[in-house]
Amino acid sequence: MAARNAFYAQSGGVTSVINASACAVIETARQHQDQIGRVYAGANGIIGALTEDMFDTSLESEQTIAMLRHTPGGAFGSCRFKLKSPEENLREYERLIEVFRAHDIGYFFYNGGGDSQDTANKVASFSAERGHDLICVGIPKTVDNDLPITDCCPGFGSVAKYVAVSTREIGLDLQAMYATSTKVFVFEVMGRHAGWIAAAAGVAKQNPEDPPHLILYPEIPFDEADFLKQVQSCVDRIGYCMVVASEGTRDADGKFLADAGTKDAFGHVQLGGVAPTLVNKITSQLGHKCHWAVADYLQRAARHIASATDVEQAYAVGKAAVEFALAGKNGVLPVIVRESTNPYRWSVGEANLSDVANVEKMMPRDYISEDGYGLTEAGVEYLQPLIQGEDYPPYENGLPVYARLKGEKVKPLTGTQFEL
Amino acid sequence: MAARNAFYAQSGGVTSVINASACAVIETARQHQDQIGRVYAGANGIIGALTEDMFDTSLESEQTIAMLRHTPGGAFGSCRFKLKSPEENLREYERLIEVFRAHDIGYFFYNGGGDSQDTANKVASFSAERGHDLICVGIPKTVDNDLPITDCCPGFGSVAKYVAVSTREIGLDLQAMYATSTKVFVFEVMGRHAGWIAAAAGVAKQNPEDPPHLILYPEIPFDEADFLKQVQSCVDRIGYCMVVASEGTRDADGKFLADAGTKDAFGHVQLGGVAPTLVNKITSQLGHKCHWAVADYLQRAARHIASATDVEQAYAVGKAAVEFALAGKNGVLPVIVRESTNPYRWSVGEANLSDVANVEKMMPRDYISEDGYGLTEAGVEYLQPLIQGEDYPPYENGLPVYARLKGEKVKPLTGTQFEL
Repeated sequence: MAARNAFYAQSGGVTSVINASACAVIETARQHQDQIGRVYAGANGIIGALTEDMFDTSLESEQTIAMLRHTPGGAFGSCRFKLKSPEENLREYERLIEVFRAHDIGYFFYNGGGDSQDTANKVASFSAERGHDLICVGIPKTVDNDLPITDCCPGFGSVAKYVAVSTREIGLDLQAMYATSTKVFVFEVMGRHAGWIAAAAGVAKQNPEDPPHLILYPEIPFDEADFLKQVQSCVDRIGYCMVVASEGTRDADGKFLADAGTKDAFGHVQLGGVAPTLVNKITSQLGHKCHWAVADYLQRAARHIASATDVEQAYAVGKAAVEFALAGKNGVLPVIVRESTNPYRWSVGEANLSDVANVEKMMPRDYISEDGYGLTEAGVEYLQPLIQGEDYPPYENGLPVYARLKGEKVKPLTGTQFEL
Repeated sequence: MAARNAFYAQSGGVTSVINASACAVIETARQHQDQIGRVYAGANGIIGALTEDMFDTSLESEQTIAMLRHTPGGAFGSCRFKLKSPEENLREYERLIEVFRAHDIGYFFYNGGGDSQDTANKVASFSAERGHDLICVGIPKTVDNDLPITDCCPGFGSVAKYVAVSTREIGLDLQAMYATSTKVFVFEVMGRHAGWIAAAAGVAKQNPEDPPHLILYPEIPFDEADFLKQVQSCVDRIGYCMVVASEGTRDADGKFLADAGTKDAFGHVQLGGVAPTLVNKITSQLGHKCHWAVADYLQRAARHIASATDVEQAYAVGKAAVEFALAGKNGVLPVIVRESTNPYRWSVGEANLSDVANVEKMMPRDYISEDGYGLTEAGVEYLQPLIQGEDYPPYENGLPVYARLKGEKVKPLTGTQFEL
């Protein structure tokens, strides 16, 4: 069988290690040039397939591809664009097949979260129906750690490490300042639906009175009166209080705290932010001096403090995806299997795309302490292995050296344009 | 001459390397036990001297003291408390002398910014007047880099590195997302009066179109219409725009952007934050999807990505302070002298406390590009050496291991209490 080309695309919010998966896909494919010709990467994810806008990664040097392993962001561009079902939007699926046929693409690797695995699954069925021989393999990625089946999700471990390290550092700063200045610090982290990222702050705690003192999870309804009581009691007890809040913190009615509820003159919702919202409550009702930080992209782009475990897992799932494809497995994705916690051992398993698509994995209740503000031993046990090891990028002139692609594109062959 | 004890205190906002100066003071003093008996460290800075609340660092192991070199925060507690002049508050100065006499303290090392150097200077004069033999030596510290005479200020280089690294990382994330999602990112950094920290973001730029695209300095009055025009023009040109804003960004009337101007029911000013304020302007007037981060303590506590140059300089000024004291120099402080930029060479010089006290060093106008939004070659040349080198702390279980003091206190001897 002649070698056929592969299409690789990045999807959704990027992580500090998604490029490590890309690196693995390309490096592994290059080792099997008898079966995989060139790896084309979608410019801005799946949109690049629809618009026939693809990078020819075969024109990038070995060194550039190797550098992807330590480069944050999404080297080929990602996208927030979900294909509807073929019933709802047939022309997108037909276009994909048209482009894949024109470029002799026989492998489709989709690197993303639950939505993307759903799309990959639909593309697999559709191309089988249309008689285009295509192997679709997913590659898991999300900082939110909310994919089912896989023990953890590549991208999460590094955010968890960033949050735990930052919590320990901010805690020391606060401890030095509280006597005459800041009494409360609020650190806002990602996690719109699931509290995995906020939970990671809890790993920083060595002694019961160490920061973080209060963690706000989206899974636990926010009770303002009780929260303020907890803050005050913590300040009374040890002099200061560090709060780590999920961006998805919401009240019993499901209303997000960050939704300030105010609109500007043009009717646009004014952005709030959970941290400043909480700080305004604390300042006005308890009178404490506060400081706050919102990490946002800082946390998911922080390749400089990536978890070595996470980097290895991101690479491993990229490599396994290609190996699955070469073994003729269609409609699957590699997942992380925890073999043992102490010592931590993991391997790569296999799951069906249909089992992963559109399912969100929340924090188990027994990872959250009874009062709803802490992390239990079980939670620490789950999280701690995921942040193990440092994987520093190389530095030049005091700054990390990240990959810069030549970025040469594949010549369009369909002769037709596609409007999104 | 019999050995006399030393008093060391940390002052103002802490940095990720102020403990490296503490480490140097203690280690250097231990090498001269014929002249310096014990080093006492003020609990919460100078307040610890007034309240006779001091750590006896001689009871800490060599290993713990060595670990201070890589521990952020302020190990003994800092304070935001400025002594008035002896004319205004005689009793504080008299109390200092009382405590210093009781504990045979002959050396006073004050680790802080401009205010603290002013205090150290006043204490030097006052004790001379009162006939208490005391050598006062300052140790420079501030993330703001706004001390005069010294070429740069220990604490700044590490914040600069954090900001430059984060800017490069966020930039890659944004670049991957802008096609279908976030078009503008606003990153808020410290710097209430001087733009040094925001300027450091400019070092991340390798090519003219690289992030950051717009830097907002406190030194340049914010012009909303022009700023929005610049953002739009950047988005039109390259598809996205990254803004780095000083917390001290203000308009032509000197009004801070972060001052939202609203008050809650109790009359407390609602906290704004420059980043969300800018984002609300961009969203409402240009309609772009934005993301934003506020680094706050993250930036000054980030010992995990400290500049090796900064750590070395923080240690060097601590060591030099003790050496100055041993040489009988009073009322001085060590400063960093830039011997050459390329290759970067520096040495430790000597300045008078009176020349450093209460003077703020702003960014030279020629470090800021003509349009007010960029960093010039001269600015890069100044900043780049300060972020050179990485100085990683040791890790255990995926987290940095920071010093934990035994924290034994010195037994009070004055027999009197002091109310602040």
